[in-house]
Amino acid sequence: MAATKLAIGNAQDGSTSSPPAGLTTVLVIGAGLIGTSVALAISRQGVKVHLRDTDPSAALAAQALGAGTVEQPREPVDLAVVAVAPAQMATELAAAQAAGAARAYTDVSSVKEAVEQASSDAGCDMSSYLGGHPMAGRERSGPWAAKPGLFEGRPWIITPTRATSAVTERLVRELIALCGAVPVVMAADAHDRAMALVSHTPHLISALTAARLEHLGQTEMMLVGQGLQDVVRISGGDPRLWADILVSNAGAVAGVLGEIALDLQRVTSALLAVASSCPSMLAQAWEEATVSLLDILGRGRAGHDRLPGKHGSPRQSFAEVHVVVGDNSGALARLLADVSAAGVNVEDIVLDHAMGTPRGTVSLQVSSAASATLPEALQALGWKAYGPLTELHRRNGGHPQ
Amino acid sequence: MAATKLAIGNAQDGSTSSPPAGLTTVLVIGAGLIGTSVALAISRQGVKVHLRDTDPSAALAAQALGAGTVEQPREPVDLAVVAVAPAQMATELAAAQAAGAARAYTDVSSVKEAVEQASSDAGCDMSSYLGGHPMAGRERSGPWAAKPGLFEGRPWIITPTRATSAVTERLVRELIALCGAVPVVMAADAHDRAMALVSHTPHLISALTAARLEHLGQTEMMLVGQGLQDVVRISGGDPRLWADILVSNAGAVAGVLGEIALDLQRVTSALLAVASSCPSMLAQAWEEATVSLLDILGRGRAGHDRLPGKHGSPRQSFAEVHVVVGDNSGALARLLADVSAAGVNVEDIVLDHAMGTPRGTVSLQVSSAASATLPEALQALGWKAYGPLTELHRRNGGHPQ
Repeated sequence: MAATKLAIGNAQDGSTSSPPAGLTTVLVIGAGLIGTSVALAISRQGVKVHLRDTDPSAALAAQALGAGTVEQPREPVDLAVVAVAPAQMATELAAAQAAGAARAYTDVSSVKEAVEQASSDAGCDMSSYLGGHPMAGRERSGPWAAKPGLFEGRPWIITPTRATSAVTERLVRELIALCGAVPVVMAADAHDRAMALVSHTPHLISALTAARLEHLGQTEMMLVGQGLQDVVRISGGDPRLWADILVSNAGAVAGVLGEIALDLQRVTSALLAVASSCPSMLAQAWEEATVSLLDILGRGRAGHDRLPGKHGSPRQSFAEVHVVVGDNSGALARLLADVSAAGVNVEDIVLDHAMGTPRGTVSLQVSSAASATLPEALQALGWKAYGPLTELHRRNGGHPQ
Repeated sequence: MAATKLAIGNAQDGSTSSPPAGLTTVLVIGAGLIGTSVALAISRQGVKVHLRDTDPSAALAAQALGAGTVEQPREPVDLAVVAVAPAQMATELAAAQAAGAARAYTDVSSVKEAVEQASSDAGCDMSSYLGGHPMAGRERSGPWAAKPGLFEGRPWIITPTRATSAVTERLVRELIALCGAVPVVMAADAHDRAMALVSHTPHLISALTAARLEHLGQTEMMLVGQGLQDVVRISGGDPRLWADILVSNAGAVAGVLGEIALDLQRVTSALLAVASSCPSMLAQAWEEATVSLLDILGRGRAGHDRLPGKHGSPRQSFAEVHVVVGDNSGALARLLADVSAAGVNVEDIVLDHAMGTPRGTVSLQVSSAASATLPEALQALGWKAYGPLTELHRRNGGHPQ
């Protein structure tokens, strides 16, 4: 999740004073990372929280952390938060409603349409239920990893339907406000398609890549770089939980997988043509494979560049100008004064000062237009300044890890 | 690349004294990240380095950083390092050999068999050439990102053939020693298969995933989490350079892609069966898709767990015991004394102290066997200690980002 704070939906002042009128008691069903973090966040705000888990030691751990009490409520609470895996949600919701556990109910499942459908099929009262999905998490799971600040400034999707009662929505919005999160209203199916694209399918793709490493040898292990580590990091997640999520969002995930399979088939065919080409056809096969790869890699980079960057700006509109400077803090100040006098706005600065060398590089991120003129302007002032590398160098001189 | 230092191949004492007898002059062809980093590393050791690039400003920048001189050598140097993209390597090598630029030649291409074949086809003298591939890199490229310490402790693959002369191999090994790297001998085809598995295919898979984000909307953007950011990070690399690498290693990459496509097809079919199932068949389709997903996700996690961990240990043989403690530094010391007295060895400790709460969790990584008995032993001493969560909780209570 990008660090950027959002300001969408109902504005929240993040106050930490007395609990709001409506929400004074909450039952958290499922004392995992999310359930316990919710409990910690609202307990601090004065809400009375009851904790329940199929594993008593999880609920006891959450209680020991100060998230609430494992004593069960004697009267219906204001809101029950069902924080279990998607496949169990409808069953837990139906049981809680049958027991009259709360005035209103919400969940935290990362799949919404299947969970809503299953709840409706299970005969749940859909007026007192509002689907929710807080966009926050950690690599570590379980109550031990819970943090009261986990949701601060994060989007918390809610998926109201025509059946949702006003009081249910008000109580859930109070919960979100107490957690410091930002409510975002979406339709359940739009939420699920988006999650298939940005979370569920990437997880499966990461696992498909990692599955190839099952029999990795010692020598091959030495060749592993940070790139692979990043691609497969999330494949370390719990297979059972993720299988549940993926099946619960089967249609949307299959749609994205189908698109990936088309690209994959195209590029595999092009590479096989190169590998099996007779010498006289090699140049043509090579050229065709290059065109196919450039298309996919180019679209990949375009997608990559859509993601929130450091300043949330589209990166492609900037370029870097590099200046070699001595080991002298006054030089940076003089350089920036000269850049400013040249009328150029600096978006970002990277200092790259290699240990043990007397010189380093200052890389200035400026507009593409400025990157064309700034090097010459700085050279005229005596700086060793260089613009972005030419396409010729990029083709000939680069070398990746 | 894991931080672990390697001790394979010829042991190096990493001395920074006078240059070794054989290697006193080097020509670096291609002043990108790798070429300039090599030049910086060996210049510091007293080697005279000449720099050349198709983009004069790249060579000038490398010179300004102290990597050597853009003046071209008047006599053959000891070793020429051809640090260009794979597709240009044979052409550059043939030209350098025709000009009698050096006594020996090496390259830094991440593909070895195609480059060797192309060099041989181009009529290069294969006795004075030894293929190389330093396993080091950065996200940033170009001479500005170069660092003399880039290769310290990293493996540097060399692929000698029967044609390689002894003097060529000696000079290249001296270069590697001066860079502080560790030489690792591999056959070219084994290197390429391994690189397809751990680098080239993961890059393409990252791009295939990122290509789906090209038309991401504003609302969907809010749902992007760290998992996706990690999977697609490397897809921001230069498409032209990566297309070149992938085509140069076409056969090996197509082989890995084929394996991925088989898994992909199987799981897509299973998900489509769920999405298009009539209600009476849904439970069966759900169950079958779950089995298929658990297989792939399980193999993915097994592959993930093969990668070098924090201590290079297989992670699956450890389990966590969690202890809730007060905000008191003496508590941690007492806890560790009690754990030690229980005869349990602690592999790793994670302190999770949420801001603004009086309590936190100490998670102790211990052997699976110890995780079964330690909680009770600690509880007897008054600690709030909990073992790994049960399978029941894992199925019901967890929740991922």
